[in-house]
Amino acid sequence: MVDMQRMLLNIEYDGTPFVGWQSQQNGKSVQDEIEVAAQKLTTQPTRVQGAGRTDAGVHAMGQAAHIDVPLNYSTHSVVMGINRYLGNLPISILSAKVVNADFNARFDAVERCYIYRILNRKAPPSLNAFRVWHLSNKLDVEAMNCASQYLVGKHDFTSFRASQCQASSPIRTMKALEIKKVGHEIHIIAIAKSFLHNQIRNITGSLVEVGKNKWKPEQVKEILSAKDRKAAGPTAPPHGLYLRNVMYPKISSN
Amino acid sequence: MVDMQRMLLNIEYDGTPFVGWQSQQNGKSVQDEIEVAAQKLTTQPTRVQGAGRTDAGVHAMGQAAHIDVPLNYSTHSVVMGINRYLGNLPISILSAKVVNADFNARFDAVERCYIYRILNRKAPPSLNAFRVWHLSNKLDVEAMNCASQYLVGKHDFTSFRASQCQASSPIRTMKALEIKKVGHEIHIIAIAKSFLHNQIRNITGSLVEVGKNKWKPEQVKEILSAKDRKAAGPTAPPHGLYLRNVMYPKISSN
Repeated sequence: MVDMQRMLLNIEYDGTPFVGWQSQQNGKSVQDEIEVAAQKLTTQPTRVQGAGRTDAGVHAMGQAAHIDVPLNYSTHSVVMGINRYLGNLPISILSAKVVNADFNARFDAVERCYIYRILNRKAPPSLNAFRVWHLSNKLDVEAMNCASQYLVGKHDFTSFRASQCQASSPIRTMKALEIKKVGHEIHIIAIAKSFLHNQIRNITGSLVEVGKNKWKPEQVKEILSAKDRKAAGPTAPPHGLYLRNVMYPKISSN
Repeated sequence: MVDMQRMLLNIEYDGTPFVGWQSQQNGKSVQDEIEVAAQKLTTQPTRVQGAGRTDAGVHAMGQAAHIDVPLNYSTHSVVMGINRYLGNLPISILSAKVVNADFNARFDAVERCYIYRILNRKAPPSLNAFRVWHLSNKLDVEAMNCASQYLVGKHDFTSFRASQCQASSPIRTMKALEIKKVGHEIHIIAIAKSFLHNQIRNITGSLVEVGKNKWKPEQVKEILSAKDRKAAGPTAPPHGLYLRNVMYPKISSN
């Protein structure tokens, strides 16, 4: 048996052509493709465990995942080798780092940061098609910012949770929820240890109702208290969402 | 006969699927597609005159073009109408503005600004595939900046001119040529009244040779003096280049 070492990968991908991060029956996932490429490199069965299970169409600037590779592989050869076997697929391994054998990309993560990009102008996107949610009517960013503050902190997020969410508890702690105007785009930046299924897309959908002045910012507080998915706004589409990065405590890596 | 008015359009496009801005025998151009959409809107033959003849694969954040439309059309209806008929093509009319009947988007332009985007990191792009030139070896940006200064001002740019360039003179005045580091990207920003065919892509190719430390910055001065295309570096690929915007004197629009 070959001696193995664990590595933490930092991964960028365009979620458009995939069924999501995680392996599924109905099509190719990002995880599948990385496993296939890694197996070609190491010539042995290889599993990849990701930190965030992004949905179909959701992108990543910095997904994190751990993988076990033979001890004689350098981080450089793992990055270059997997990228080579990924070929023209829109998945790139940005870097690799050796970590302890008991490190777990999913369970050791202390913070996940997501960005939701809205393109807020009359004309549809052409350079950023499938990269932003296009909303042509001007949104009230100040009202959205106001509303977002009711969602910061520890709350029961049942109103913003997908019905198929498998988490045992609807309680999550939103460390930060910021709304920034960047040119014609509005960025919603959300940071938490972990999120419920569709939580950011559902929050975005409600913040957009506020931005359209259909709801007052304070209504978001009532929606949260209602603990009822039907009280909140629609789910924003996947293609505006990016997993930006995943944070780990320093201690878990060599 | 219908009374007409001239409008100046501001246009964004992804150049990837097109043979370039200008109509050609060998495939669909951006100009063709806008003309087809505009004709559907106005139900009459319509010509569009662009400010910059971008090549196949080159993008635009702000191409400018003029068009004549019936007098009873508002700028809003022209923008919305053309965009609707463009459908899912990666071309967006960002805005329209009424200008004098003798305004010419090509000949009245006083300044054109292009950006060339290089992705300078080991991993290939996935979120920005076909949007940047990927160069994996670290470039010396300071040396590139140094070299670029020899190209600012009025010069004979024969060394950086495509053999098929149709301009009557190889003399151009580079108003600005800036190199900026933006995260993992290097942006080359070039401003001039007008450019020779492939001038920015040829300059980029030579600046990259300097960035790789194959050439000293001062060699760019010698290359310029040689007035010989063979003295300069290779032509950078089209997909890193963007026509950012076109400037006009205030007087030419209403």
